[in-house]
Amino acid sequence: MFITNPEIEEYLKSLIQEEDPVLKEMEELGHKLNFPIVDKLVGRFFYLLTKLKKPKLIVELGSGFGYSGYWFAKALTDGKVILTDYKEENINLAKKFFENGNLSEKAIFRTGDAIEIVSEYKNIDILFLDLEKRRYKEAVEKLIPNLNPNALIIADNVLWHGKVVQKNPDKQTEAIKEFNEFMFNLPDFFTTIIPLRDGVLISLKQ
Amino acid sequence: MFITNPEIEEYLKSLIQEEDPVLKEMEELGHKLNFPIVDKLVGRFFYLLTKLKKPKLIVELGSGFGYSGYWFAKALTDGKVILTDYKEENINLAKKFFENGNLSEKAIFRTGDAIEIVSEYKNIDILFLDLEKRRYKEAVEKLIPNLNPNALIIADNVLWHGKVVQKNPDKQTEAIKEFNEFMFNLPDFFTTIIPLRDGVLISLKQ
Repeated sequence: MFITNPEIEEYLKSLIQEEDPVLKEMEELGHKLNFPIVDKLVGRFFYLLTKLKKPKLIVELGSGFGYSGYWFAKALTDGKVILTDYKEENINLAKKFFENGNLSEKAIFRTGDAIEIVSEYKNIDILFLDLEKRRYKEAVEKLIPNLNPNALIIADNVLWHGKVVQKNPDKQTEAIKEFNEFMFNLPDFFTTIIPLRDGVLISLKQ
Repeated sequence: MFITNPEIEEYLKSLIQEEDPVLKEMEELGHKLNFPIVDKLVGRFFYLLTKLKKPKLIVELGSGFGYSGYWFAKALTDGKVILTDYKEENINLAKKFFENGNLSEKAIFRTGDAIEIVSEYKNIDILFLDLEKRRYKEAVEKLIPNLNPNALIIADNVLWHGKVVQKNPDKQTEAIKEFNEFMFNLPDFFTTIIPLRDGVLISLKQ
């Protein structure tokens, strides 16, 4: 089951002439390790949202080896992105990629429990969720007090390979469906989902 | 041929509890007349982009009876949206809907050739293209001098019912493909396409 017609996805990718060698390297590594990274279409979308939002502080819950964080950092003119992952190995890879792309000064790298780490940060402008799917709702509930006015919440994988529309969903899918409904009904937040790759939820604090 | 899996689209729409009666009326009218309006998923996306961008001036090339314009206007805190259409009948409908939604003060309604009308406006923050598909490129070429720094160009229907990936495309499809390539290669613009409904191109002047 697919979300976007694969031929259309191919067409969209064919239009992009990516010139950043670090992004290419990261994409190749993701492919090689079969590591789930948001792809270049999602990356470009994050870049655009960041350019529009002009945030001072972006926090990522679940950075992997830094692909999404790299796109956020590229779009920052004045601000920082906090990358978190529970695996030191991933964070070390991310550090290397950011160095190669001359983006280290825009990033802070942290290893450990993402929600715990991010709880230390106040005045968050963009909160990016890409940790275990069952923890999305918990993350938002805990971190709402740390958000700036007009903060943006972005969550990846909210269509979960299309499983959200299948009968007898498993527990992880149930958790994602519950999270989506929670976000669409959260007072003072305006939420929508973009069916890009695995589904990107965007929610603006109003 | 579809762009987004129809079951997924249904799911996304099911999450939305739209409370604005004017939007509902417009959606019903679009359905009844089989008039192509950007749907509520695209409307919400425009609302979000506008909230992030905080524009002073939005211009629409091809407003129909005002559905997209209504979403733009709803998101404006301080600014105007210029609606254009070559059919007086459409513009009159739009006026009525804006009155019912108490949004008239945020809008200027114009009938005639969209490109010609919009050429009068300088300092454009968001340029929205929804006129005849063969004229998209002409519109951008003519209006680039009228854009503000960091202006956003948004174009609807850039995947043209998926025809962009079909063999032996017709002339209209060829024009859209050419426009997409033109935008992705336009110096000083960062472009991406969101496969939402019929395809939404977004391009940021850098």
